[in-house]
Amino acid sequence: MAQNIYDNPDFFAGYSQLPRQVRGLDGAPEWPAIRAMLPELGGRRVVDLGCGFGWASRWMREHGAASVLGVDLSDNMIGRAQAQTDDLAIEYGLADLESLQLPAAAFDLAYSALAFHYVEDFDRLVRMIHRALMPGGHLVFTIEHPVFMAAAHPHWISDEDGRETWPVNQYSMEGERRTDWFAKGVVKYHRTIGTTVGTLLRAGFQLRGIEEFAPSPEQVEETPALAKERERPMMLLVSAQR
Amino acid sequence: MAQNIYDNPDFFAGYSQLPRQVRGLDGAPEWPAIRAMLPELGGRRVVDLGCGFGWASRWMREHGAASVLGVDLSDNMIGRAQAQTDDLAIEYGLADLESLQLPAAAFDLAYSALAFHYVEDFDRLVRMIHRALMPGGHLVFTIEHPVFMAAAHPHWISDEDGRETWPVNQYSMEGERRTDWFAKGVVKYHRTIGTTVGTLLRAGFQLRGIEEFAPSPEQVEETPALAKERERPMMLLVSAQR
Repeated sequence: MAQNIYDNPDFFAGYSQLPRQVRGLDGAPEWPAIRAMLPELGGRRVVDLGCGFGWASRWMREHGAASVLGVDLSDNMIGRAQAQTDDLAIEYGLADLESLQLPAAAFDLAYSALAFHYVEDFDRLVRMIHRALMPGGHLVFTIEHPVFMAAAHPHWISDEDGRETWPVNQYSMEGERRTDWFAKGVVKYHRTIGTTVGTLLRAGFQLRGIEEFAPSPEQVEETPALAKERERPMMLLVSAQR
Repeated sequence: MAQNIYDNPDFFAGYSQLPRQVRGLDGAPEWPAIRAMLPELGGRRVVDLGCGFGWASRWMREHGAASVLGVDLSDNMIGRAQAQTDDLAIEYGLADLESLQLPAAAFDLAYSALAFHYVEDFDRLVRMIHRALMPGGHLVFTIEHPVFMAAAHPHWISDEDGRETWPVNQYSMEGERRTDWFAKGVVKYHRTIGTTVGTLLRAGFQLRGIEEFAPSPEQVEETPALAKERERPMMLLVSAQR
């Protein structure tokens, strides 16, 4: 079973204050890049894996999805997501991505934002998603970039010119990483890009695109703290098709 | 035109002493991983882009390729490659990958080792290779990994535990990087993995695999200096199919 840090009160209190939780998709600087990767939504049956407060689930439904199933392992998240909508075509369920089973060929799009790096058995998850999609169906997901996750002590350092620099070590050593993020010992799983892509291809997906999110000049102007994110790849955005 | 550092005498003198130049493919620790990515070679027409001393060109021919065309921009390299073989099915030519044109649908496999990161116009090169391959033909290539290339001052540092650590900065800022490697100011071109993969997909290739080379425990035992290469991804290995 995956660690459920989201129902830790300290974690939840801090996490709920993140711009992307308060402002929704507009608070997530990578959202325009994700949006550009999404297929046409009209009439599609969508599953949102790790839906959190349901921002993306609601957005997909407002942009034409026929139905959206949002799943998350956190009671807190699902409770708040359910309270945000009266739309009967959006359904929420409590489930752990480590063991979740979905019906076969029941969805046209599987979407997930920043959840898969909490899953230890990525191979099982990807094969399950492949079965749950219709032929031609899409999988679009984001994870923390392995360059962001790999190091034993992931924090900004300066190079000899004072340039913000991100340390990489133990890149090829996949597996558990523990970090302190609103709570001590948040567990994530580091996988190389090679492994992530290989897992998709071996499950039968075709790769449609990879993006390594970096903020645009306009985004940096609006939110100067984002400038650092041009120095390192923070997130990996992946689009694949069954 | 690409910089021809290989015909700089200082560079060539140092470069020629690298284990992979002296010992050939056995001196390249990533070779087993490349070999696993290659299609069946029997009867295939191969082009080796940036063939250097022709180690891989000869290997492909010895493993069943019907013909091999090796191209390189260095007189020194091509001269030595030609001197190594009497096989009339191996042909060598002097050409710059920045402007090389190949006949349409003339090859079954395009192979390149550690050459494409010297090419500024990767999009042109990839489209040209796509046209030069038969439908179903393969492109297998290696480049320096963008994590290896990105930083302004790429050299090992230590983290707080004394762990060998590789610095990453200016990752999203693509383009020229100058390093000193046997000669001053060797020019390379940094591209993100997202750009490399996107260029292939937009040209019409399907991605078959990505590997981020790391040495095996056996390789580290044989060559302890390789241990560091488990900390950072040094090379990107890519397999695609027309």
